[in-house]
Amino acid sequence: MTNTSATLEHLIEQFAKLPGIGKKTAYRLAYHVLQAPVDSARSLADAIIAVKEKIRFCSVCFNVTDDDPCPICRSTDRDTSLVCVVEEPHDVLAFERAGTYRGVYHVLGGVFSPLDGIGPDELKIGELVKRVKDDGINEVIIATNPTAEGETTAVYLAKILRPLGVSVSRIARGLPMGGDVEYADANTVLRALEGRTEI
Amino acid sequence: MTNTSATLEHLIEQFAKLPGIGKKTAYRLAYHVLQAPVDSARSLADAIIAVKEKIRFCSVCFNVTDDDPCPICRSTDRDTSLVCVVEEPHDVLAFERAGTYRGVYHVLGGVFSPLDGIGPDELKIGELVKRVKDDGINEVIIATNPTAEGETTAVYLAKILRPLGVSVSRIARGLPMGGDVEYADANTVLRALEGRTEI
Repeated sequence: MTNTSATLEHLIEQFAKLPGIGKKTAYRLAYHVLQAPVDSARSLADAIIAVKEKIRFCSVCFNVTDDDPCPICRSTDRDTSLVCVVEEPHDVLAFERAGTYRGVYHVLGGVFSPLDGIGPDELKIGELVKRVKDDGINEVIIATNPTAEGETTAVYLAKILRPLGVSVSRIARGLPMGGDVEYADANTVLRALEGRTEI
Repeated sequence: MTNTSATLEHLIEQFAKLPGIGKKTAYRLAYHVLQAPVDSARSLADAIIAVKEKIRFCSVCFNVTDDDPCPICRSTDRDTSLVCVVEEPHDVLAFERAGTYRGVYHVLGGVFSPLDGIGPDELKIGELVKRVKDDGINEVIIATNPTAEGETTAVYLAKILRPLGVSVSRIARGLPMGGDVEYADANTVLRALEGRTEI
């Protein structure tokens, strides 16, 4: 049995297509839109369209941006000799939130994933090599996720970047702050041991 | 620190206004829209607008509908002498999914909530009384939620409807099917005992 309104049913289906939104949550969201003032519904719809129409990728670092180059690449305040390589635009945000990093970024647009047909050519790796060769970069920090795919990509990047005479490092993997050794998985504990530093 | 794209940041804020959507989920949804094909983003935006533009309330039962009266009130297949009173349009859906109910509905649009300033005048109670008086209704089933507010509303409705010579009943409250006595709260167990039926 469906709703008495096909229009409402359609919105529920659209919401249910979003990641992590099940049928029940989609219902709740659709009913919220139904009961919300028309202005706030229109704001949401407009914001969705604007994202598709206005956002582009920075031609330098491939982060998402309204203006090309992005504010970080344009900034005179950043150390352009230091590049942090991340998988996705939201990873940039995580580093910016942390607040202390003053270098620039390079967004790969993913990591190696043979099953999905994603290899070096599908990622912004050629562009990274070009930046390292041409833009006076001294150090590359590889900040792909500590997953199997992220590690593989990191090893590959280190192999092709090191011969270019640049320092290549990998972000530390270990216990998260506020974490608990007791509940950490074996791999994390292993990494935390390997990466220990003198105090 | 915000995103490098104000447009993206704005969409995140819009998503975060939806009920049950926190900042992190809003990020994920916004990035999904960013990476989704333009068509699917437009479908979502259009569906949001359509809900505000096309949906109205049924002038008989106050359920949401694309056409007035709603398909249930228009149907010649339903017993119009039996009315099930619910809080919200999604409650109608729950009964329709259950499948056996052949009467019609009346959507109150909420329940008494003095703190929010919701009393009899804010709900479709006058309209319900009018239906009971004019439309040949024999039985009213009160299916407001078994919450403090829902129970108060149910008691009030029974008090004003019974003098009109109509049979008034309340849906059963007890252990949910598949539930477990051990984990049921005391109130539910009490209701299940009170509402016991001979087998």
